[in-house]
Amino acid sequence: MQQSFERLATDSHSNARRGRLTTAHGEIDTPTFMPVGTQGSVKGVSPRELHELNAQIVLGNTYHLFVRPGLDVLKHFGGLHNFMNWDGPLLTDSGGYQIFSLAKLRKITEQGVEFQNHIDGARAFISPEIAMEIQTLLGSDIAMALDECVPYPCEYDYAAESAEMTTRWAKRCREWKRRNAEMARPELADSMLFGIVQGGTFEDLRKESAQAIVDLDFAGYAIGGVSVGEPEEEMMRAVEWAEPFLPANKPRYAMGLGTPPQLLELIARGMDMFDCVLPTRLARNGTAFTAAGTINLKNAEFILDKNPIEENCACEACREFTRGYIRHLIKAEEILGLRLITLHNLHFYLNLMNQARAEIEKGTFDRFRKAFAAEYKTRDLLRVE
Amino acid sequence: MQQSFERLATDSHSNARRGRLTTAHGEIDTPTFMPVGTQGSVKGVSPRELHELNAQIVLGNTYHLFVRPGLDVLKHFGGLHNFMNWDGPLLTDSGGYQIFSLAKLRKITEQGVEFQNHIDGARAFISPEIAMEIQTLLGSDIAMALDECVPYPCEYDYAAESAEMTTRWAKRCREWKRRNAEMARPELADSMLFGIVQGGTFEDLRKESAQAIVDLDFAGYAIGGVSVGEPEEEMMRAVEWAEPFLPANKPRYAMGLGTPPQLLELIARGMDMFDCVLPTRLARNGTAFTAAGTINLKNAEFILDKNPIEENCACEACREFTRGYIRHLIKAEEILGLRLITLHNLHFYLNLMNQARAEIEKGTFDRFRKAFAAEYKTRDLLRVE
Repeated sequence: MQQSFERLATDSHSNARRGRLTTAHGEIDTPTFMPVGTQGSVKGVSPRELHELNAQIVLGNTYHLFVRPGLDVLKHFGGLHNFMNWDGPLLTDSGGYQIFSLAKLRKITEQGVEFQNHIDGARAFISPEIAMEIQTLLGSDIAMALDECVPYPCEYDYAAESAEMTTRWAKRCREWKRRNAEMARPELADSMLFGIVQGGTFEDLRKESAQAIVDLDFAGYAIGGVSVGEPEEEMMRAVEWAEPFLPANKPRYAMGLGTPPQLLELIARGMDMFDCVLPTRLARNGTAFTAAGTINLKNAEFILDKNPIEENCACEACREFTRGYIRHLIKAEEILGLRLITLHNLHFYLNLMNQARAEIEKGTFDRFRKAFAAEYKTRDLLRVE
Repeated sequence: MQQSFERLATDSHSNARRGRLTTAHGEIDTPTFMPVGTQGSVKGVSPRELHELNAQIVLGNTYHLFVRPGLDVLKHFGGLHNFMNWDGPLLTDSGGYQIFSLAKLRKITEQGVEFQNHIDGARAFISPEIAMEIQTLLGSDIAMALDECVPYPCEYDYAAESAEMTTRWAKRCREWKRRNAEMARPELADSMLFGIVQGGTFEDLRKESAQAIVDLDFAGYAIGGVSVGEPEEEMMRAVEWAEPFLPANKPRYAMGLGTPPQLLELIARGMDMFDCVLPTRLARNGTAFTAAGTINLKNAEFILDKNPIEENCACEACREFTRGYIRHLIKAEEILGLRLITLHNLHFYLNLMNQARAEIEKGTFDRFRKAFAAEYKTRDLLRVE
């Protein structure tokens, strides 16, 4: 199976692209949203439901899976596809982001990262080469190079040194893959490796990082360090600075983003792939996405509401249940409540991508994006968690 | 729609019967198992999944629904079928059992029960007539007369007085229904009312209660007070004492029972309907039912197990997932894990009823029951919770 990325249409008003990424486990229409399967499961959702939602790719978190159930188990089951019974494409992160955000006693050196995991405190070490070994064992269709994701805010000097180290790590990942492919490891033939642009909130660093990573020639490019608490303008600028350096014929992935209007803005800035825990995480708090913005179904205003979460929504929750019933389930801590909101929220995100693709094809994406932003009332999502 | 109960086959070695109960919302093949939808949802399971499991009737708990979301809400939504989007038959309990087991500051008088609910401590009062009003509002296909369920152990005198009061309450429920049916309340035409036999662990009281309740002429008969911590022999005896008094052409419901071998024993003793929280409650602890007995998927022995929970099981969990993966989900506290075990456990119970019906029809139920009991290793289920 040959991996490839085709651009099927481009927008004349923005950098938006409608494309198709081909992997060993199937095709992915871009722009695409990847539900997050942190621990080998998209929270509350079965693989059958993911197919019914028309999810085309799932993200797995290498760090979480490395800690639990551990690599011996995943190897025994023949990788993550088999383990979780998901037969579509899988992207795995490198583990770096979670080591920096969850693990304890991290020690970063040129060689790699030493840490204690957050579950049982066991010590472990991940290098670029080990990150590649793990993702190969998981059977990723799209593996990510190990990077350091710097916090926000971050001193210029630290961000500069870190971005340079991320480039050196990316090179080692690239080398590892080349070396192992030469050794004819068959599992590598079917996988793609993406490099990650870093550089914090600094224009020159973002540009230098983008150029250096692109020089290494990856199958796709991600923009990292953009979902770390920075203001939205900083996030958009980081993408705008890097984007011109990224080859048009390769997929671009904006990591860990974002709200629905942000996704449309990022698509307009030439991004193709997204992952975000908001649809699943907010569902557990009773928060649902609608075209008018988020609503919290715990609110008393929904007690007698016979409407679905969103009029004309085609998801199972909206086809079959009222806001009033779902509110009751959430208040009574019934699992079905968060299942239904999760299904709705994932449908909302996936359908937004579906609409964006259609609008790019029709040449009307710009109008769509502006109309969406005008109707969508952004609330401070961090406050409702 | 005329409600009816037909006996389609009887067993020559026992009192087992294979029948069909017709309600306004569909037919129920008996012996039948009713998944418990305590708060308007069978825990973790959607109505669509209940249909896929071939569940033919769901039990709703009047007390829980009375407390939350409350009768105003349920009335506004047009009853429990509409509220939870379940279009099959519904049986509701009277609320009595949960008032006695969950509510606080109960005061029982001839008139009814005064109590404070366990959620917000609000005071409420339920009488036989109010229990009927509530179940009518819920839209039950099968309503239960209000009874007092005495604890185990219980003094003879208290059990005797209580059983007599339960009979007087049953009569008031019967009268309420007759009076309201004469007032041509259309929602009553489609519902059945079952009386409940009480009498604790005392032979004469059980027999007197059975005779008195049957004299009141209900559409079906339940045996209550049999899942209150008494030894299994006491439970079986309570059923055996009452059963000869129950008319053969009416359905019989053994309330709140039981383990899989117990259900087969109760079927052999002429019982037709069962409800039990074990399949859903134990699933939340990682415990799955198999023909060889229960297994706890948290155990380390399942870490590398590529088998389904049970070989040749047709449920979604067994068709698509391994014990090792489900174990991982339970250990990682992923909701999908308890969803899958819940689906399996409900399938196990429903399929056991399916098998029992087929064996009764073939005249081989007795052999089936003995073979099942020989293979099924009973563990102390209370210990694994």
